[in-house]
Amino acid sequence: MPNRRTVFFISDRTGITAEMLGNSLLSQFEEVDFQRVTIPFVDTTENIDAVIEQVNETAAREGRRPIVFSSIVDEAMSERVRRGTNALTLDLFQAFVAPLESELALRSSHAAGRSHGIANSHEYFARMDAINFSQTHDDGAATRDLAKAQVILVGVSRCGKTPTSLYLALQFGIRAANFPLTPDDFADRVLPGSLLPHKERLFGLTINPDRLHKIREERRPGSKYAALENCRYEVRECEHLLEREGIPMLDTTAKSIEEIATTISYRAKLRRHVY
Amino acid sequence: MPNRRTVFFISDRTGITAEMLGNSLLSQFEEVDFQRVTIPFVDTTENIDAVIEQVNETAAREGRRPIVFSSIVDEAMSERVRRGTNALTLDLFQAFVAPLESELALRSSHAAGRSHGIANSHEYFARMDAINFSQTHDDGAATRDLAKAQVILVGVSRCGKTPTSLYLALQFGIRAANFPLTPDDFADRVLPGSLLPHKERLFGLTINPDRLHKIREERRPGSKYAALENCRYEVRECEHLLEREGIPMLDTTAKSIEEIATTISYRAKLRRHVY
Repeated sequence: MPNRRTVFFISDRTGITAEMLGNSLLSQFEEVDFQRVTIPFVDTTENIDAVIEQVNETAAREGRRPIVFSSIVDEAMSERVRRGTNALTLDLFQAFVAPLESELALRSSHAAGRSHGIANSHEYFARMDAINFSQTHDDGAATRDLAKAQVILVGVSRCGKTPTSLYLALQFGIRAANFPLTPDDFADRVLPGSLLPHKERLFGLTINPDRLHKIREERRPGSKYAALENCRYEVRECEHLLEREGIPMLDTTAKSIEEIATTISYRAKLRRHVY
Repeated sequence: MPNRRTVFFISDRTGITAEMLGNSLLSQFEEVDFQRVTIPFVDTTENIDAVIEQVNETAAREGRRPIVFSSIVDEAMSERVRRGTNALTLDLFQAFVAPLESELALRSSHAAGRSHGIANSHEYFARMDAINFSQTHDDGAATRDLAKAQVILVGVSRCGKTPTSLYLALQFGIRAANFPLTPDDFADRVLPGSLLPHKERLFGLTINPDRLHKIREERRPGSKYAALENCRYEVRECEHLLEREGIPMLDTTAKSIEEIATTISYRAKLRRHVY
């Protein structure tokens, strides 16, 4: 395996930021088969030294040095990793602290970050509230309290409403409900009555019928529900209904959940409750 | 407002990575009141120039230059932002491309990243499967298919099981079920029968009783369920039950969802399906 390389994501907290930025960088090098190892909560000298040993053993065993994405807030700890490892160490955090200190004319506190932390009680409750709300208002399960939704996602079954609602709640603290549009609605050629008072907060999701067919086949193989012909009918009617009603619409076919959620929150100018 | 500063997160994709790393850096400067603006999907010259104008107008209006966290994959586009803006521009992506290219002896593809993308169909379905699973197996709603769970979170009502399960599914593609432990179980002094075949995949969550009381009061004010005395009883009995059964346990009180999910996936050595 000439083009194999081990990658470590090391953090004094969860390592999720290091993974996200690191993976985004690694996706630029498709020729390489990266083996990923995440080591979170590296926040003592003993932990750091154990990680250094693991990285160096990997380097020796594989005959090529690993890549280390490090996001450690403590400067001395971070330096210890950089100096101690036989690796390409990319320090995602330290690289930007100095220019920020200089720009703001302040010293950074060098305390482990607290974004998304429970330390901020207001954000914590806002986020829990959003998650509860999105769970309770999934798939049209509750129409009470729809007035409290910041956005109500509508579309045919399996077009991406549920994961998008959950992501909006978890990542951004946005109260997102979702409501299915069904063949009954298409026959009536009108929106479900419970949605009408909230029309200005509806956001439509649509999807390529072939893709929908594939997704529904995973769930109910061979059913009428999953049949390509039915998927084509539902998507066409749903799009017509949304267009007639002037509801904004997004095609989810080639998009990740992150992209769908970001597009909706940006276009609908939704206020986030979590940073 | 002397210590106020506008911060832009600019990305050719969702900007979520830029926000996460940026906010982690900003949390080091608590004295400053940061005003945040995220501009996703900046991927044409026209978009870039509109952003540059917006940043420069902000600089002129506020009399101090904004901070720009940029994660744009295209080198020329990124350079255009850096040169065109009157701002401190921190380029979260470009900063690490050159050392990676040199280390790997490869040119990066400079194509917009696709991590979490739908382009990877296997990851897409694994993630959707995990989200469906966690939704269906929330709060003990389904005991069928528990054998397919990678982890089953157990604990008293409102200790953090639901958001953690959802986060494990959304961020890591891990199939996480959750199951409440109730006063009935504590009276019987045994685990619910449906959990027994899966004991080795149980993971316990616990919480400080005062915190639990506060959380439950938000939900059902003045109820016996929320009473501090009852919270103390449930937490104590739950912890004893988990200890007797030898089930690993994590205190969620002072932790964010990210920290809880990371700790569980790391300790239980869960295989991730999403990168």
